[in-house]
Amino acid sequence: MHEVAVIGGDGIGPEIIASGRKVLDAAGERYGFEIGWTDFDIGAERYLKTGELVSEAELDALSSYPAIYFGAIGDDRVTPGILEKGILLTLRFAFDQYVNLRPVKMLAGVDTPLAGKGPKDIDFLVVRENTEDFYVGIGSRFSGKEKKQLEVVRNLYSVKFGLDVESDAEEIAYQIGVLTREGSRRVMEYAFNASRKRRKKVTSVDKANVLSDVYGLWRDVFRDVAAQNPDITTEFNYVDAITMWFVKNPEWFDVVVTPNMFGDIITDLGAMIQGGLGLAPGGNINPEGTSMFEPIHGSAPKYKGLNVANPLATVWAGALLLDHLGEAEASEAVVKGIEASIANGIVTRDMGGSATTSGVGDWIANWISK
Amino acid sequence: MHEVAVIGGDGIGPEIIASGRKVLDAAGERYGFEIGWTDFDIGAERYLKTGELVSEAELDALSSYPAIYFGAIGDDRVTPGILEKGILLTLRFAFDQYVNLRPVKMLAGVDTPLAGKGPKDIDFLVVRENTEDFYVGIGSRFSGKEKKQLEVVRNLYSVKFGLDVESDAEEIAYQIGVLTREGSRRVMEYAFNASRKRRKKVTSVDKANVLSDVYGLWRDVFRDVAAQNPDITTEFNYVDAITMWFVKNPEWFDVVVTPNMFGDIITDLGAMIQGGLGLAPGGNINPEGTSMFEPIHGSAPKYKGLNVANPLATVWAGALLLDHLGEAEASEAVVKGIEASIANGIVTRDMGGSATTSGVGDWIANWISK
Ligand SMILES: CC(C)[C@H](C(=O)O)[C@@H](O)C(=O)O
Ligand SMILES: CC(C)[C@H](C(=O)O)[C@@H](O)C(=O)O
Repeated sequence: MHEVAVIGGDGIGPEIIASGRKVLDAAGERYGFEIGWTDFDIGAERYLKTGELVSEAELDALSSYPAIYFGAIGDDRVTPGILEKGILLTLRFAFDQYVNLRPVKMLAGVDTPLAGKGPKDIDFLVVRENTEDFYVGIGSRFSGKEKKQLEVVRNLYSVKFGLDVESDAEEIAYQIGVLTREGSRRVMEYAFNASRKRRKKVTSVDKANVLSDVYGLWRDVFRDVAAQNPDITTEFNYVDAITMWFVKNPEWFDVVVTPNMFGDIITDLGAMIQGGLGLAPGGNINPEGTSMFEPIHGSAPKYKGLNVANPLATVWAGALLLDHLGEAEASEAVVKGIEASIANGIVTRDMGGSATTSGVGDWIANWISK
Repeated sequence: MHEVAVIGGDGIGPEIIASGRKVLDAAGERYGFEIGWTDFDIGAERYLKTGELVSEAELDALSSYPAIYFGAIGDDRVTPGILEKGILLTLRFAFDQYVNLRPVKMLAGVDTPLAGKGPKDIDFLVVRENTEDFYVGIGSRFSGKEKKQLEVVRNLYSVKFGLDVESDAEEIAYQIGVLTREGSRRVMEYAFNASRKRRKKVTSVDKANVLSDVYGLWRDVFRDVAAQNPDITTEFNYVDAITMWFVKNPEWFDVVVTPNMFGDIITDLGAMIQGGLGLAPGGNINPEGTSMFEPIHGSAPKYKGLNVANPLATVWAGALLLDHLGEAEASEAVVKGIEASIANGIVTRDMGGSATTSGVGDWIANWISK
C-alpha cells in the first residue's frame, strides 16, 4: 500500500490526473500493490474564492506523503506568477525537492521537429537544480523617489549603468539569484549517480563567462564533484551553446546537470525535440522527503473540461512516481503502455489522433491489465 | 569615405575579418565609397603580454568612429569571463550599444536541422537588450565566515533557503540583474520601429511568472510601448516556451524583443535553426554613437591560422555595418554575394564545401565587383 497525495489543480489538470490515476491503479493491480489517493483542493478556483494558495496545515499534511501527483496550475484570471510561485514553487521549496528530473526521451512512433533524428538519438536526462538560483524570489522594484531602496542597490554594485538611475523619474527593478556550494554539490552528486546507470557522461550547464559569481561557484563545485567521480566523463557547456547542440546533436548527451533557471529553459526545448510538451514528464525529488511528479506542461485553460488534452506526460510522470516508490517493474509497464498506445494510434489530436483524454487513460490501463 | 575601427581579436578572428574587409572594400568600389580601416590591437595576445584589456585611451579613440568591425575574442589560456567581460561587454557597455540586432534568416541553399522548414519559414529579427539585466556584472562570492557580506545579502532577502547559509562552512554566491524603465523602453521602441518595416508583429520574451521584479517591469513597459504603437500586433512569450516555438513554428515570428540574458540564449538557438553559427551575424547598435558589428560565434582557437573558418557570419555582419553607415545598396549586394557563394558551392567545410576562409572572401568580393 502506497499513500499518494493528489493535486489536480487548474484547467486540464484534473482530467489528465484522472487518466494517470487510472493507469497507476491498473499497474498496482497487475504488480500487487495498492495506491491510497488523497485529494488536496489546491489551485486557482480556491485562491479566487478564499485568497488561500497553500496553507501551513496543508504543507504539514502533505509532508507525511512520500509523493504528490500534481496536475497543473495556471488560470487566465490570475496575474502571472501568483499561482506559479504561491503553489508550484512553494511546494518545490517547502519540501526541499532539490532535484528536478526531466528525461528527454523520444519514444518510438512519435514525431520530432528535428530532421533525421529518431529515438536512438534523443535519449538523455536533464537534472535541474530546483531550490536555488534566480528562483529564490529575491528582488524589488521601485522608482527613483524611493531613495532608501536605491541606496541599497547602489551600494551593492560598483559598475556604471549607461542610464541615470539617480533620476527621480527613473523606475528600476532588480532580481537576485543565489547559489550555495552544498546546494550545487548535492544535485550534481545525484546527476553523477544517475549517469552511472546510463552512459557515464555528465554535461554541466552554466554561463560562467558572464554571471561569474553564481556560475563560477557552480563550475568550481562541478570540477570538485567530477574529481571525486573519475569514472564519469564530464564537460562544460554554456547555456547559449547547449540550445544549439540539443537541436543539432542531441545524441551527444547522457546526463545534463543545470542550475534552476537555465534548466527551465532547456527542458522546454528538450520537451519539444522529444515530441512536444504533451509528452514530457518531470519529477521534483527530495530523496529523503516528499517528492512531486507532474507533466512539465501547463494548465491549458482553453481545453478545460473538453476531454481533449494529451494525458501522456502525466501518465509518464506517474511512471516516475512508481519508480520513486520502488515499483520499478510497474513503472516500466506504464512506459511500455504509453508506447503501445502510440503504436496503436490511440493518441489525442495534438499527436494526430482522435482519442480523448480519458480514452487514452482507459486504453493504457486496460493494456497493462492484460 | 567611411572611417571604421577594426578589432580582429583572437583565434580565427583576424582571418574572418580579413575576408570581410575584402568584401566590404569591393562593395565600396562598386557603389562609390571608400572605407578607411584602422586596426586596434586588442585581444588575448596583448592581455597575456601586458595585462591590458581595453584602455581608457582606446575607448576614447574608438568613440570617434561610427562603427567597429569586430572579429572574435577568447583564448584557452585565459580564464573564461576575463576577455568576454573585459573586452566585448566593456565595449557594448562603454558605447551604450543598447540594441543587439540579430537577424535569424535562413538563406537559400543552407541546411537547417529542422524538418520541413525552409527560408520562407525562418526569417525573423531578434532585438536583444544589450546594456542591462544580468549582464551588469554585479555579484559576489564568499564563504559564511565573511559575515559582513553575508549581512548585506541577508538584509536584502526575506525568503528562507532550504540550506543553512549561516553555517560557517557554507560558500555562497549571488548575482544581481537590473532593469530600468528607460532601458527597456528604448530597445522596445527600436523593435517596434523595425517591425513596422517588416510584418508588424512584436513578440516580447520574459519570465515574469518567476523573476517577477525585473521582468514584471519589462512586461509593464512592453504594454505601455505596445499601447503607443497600436498598428503593431504584440504577444508575450515566456523564455522557456519560446525555445519550443523557435523549433516548431519559426514562421510565427517577425520581431522578437528580449532582455539581455534570454537574448543570448535564444539567439544561439536562432543561429542554429538558420543554418549554424557560421552564418549568424550581429550588430551592437547605439543609434547616436559608436556601433559594433560581429559574427555571433566565438574565436574557435583550434582553427586559428588554418584558413578553414567560415567567414560568412562576419561578411554578413559587414553587410549590417554598411547598412548602418547608410550604404543600403552596398549592404544588399553583400548579402546577395553571400547567397551567390552558397548557390555556387563556394563554402567552407562546416557547410559541406572545400573552400578556404580567404577563398570565400575573394569569391564574394569578385562577384560584387562584376
Ligand atoms: C510554471 C513555472 C513556475 C515552472 C518553472 O519555471 O519552473 C515551469 O515552467 C516548469 O518548468 O516547471
Ligand atoms: C561571449 C559572450 C560574453 C557573449 C554574450 O553572452 O553576450 C556571446 O555569447 C554573445 O552572444 O555575443
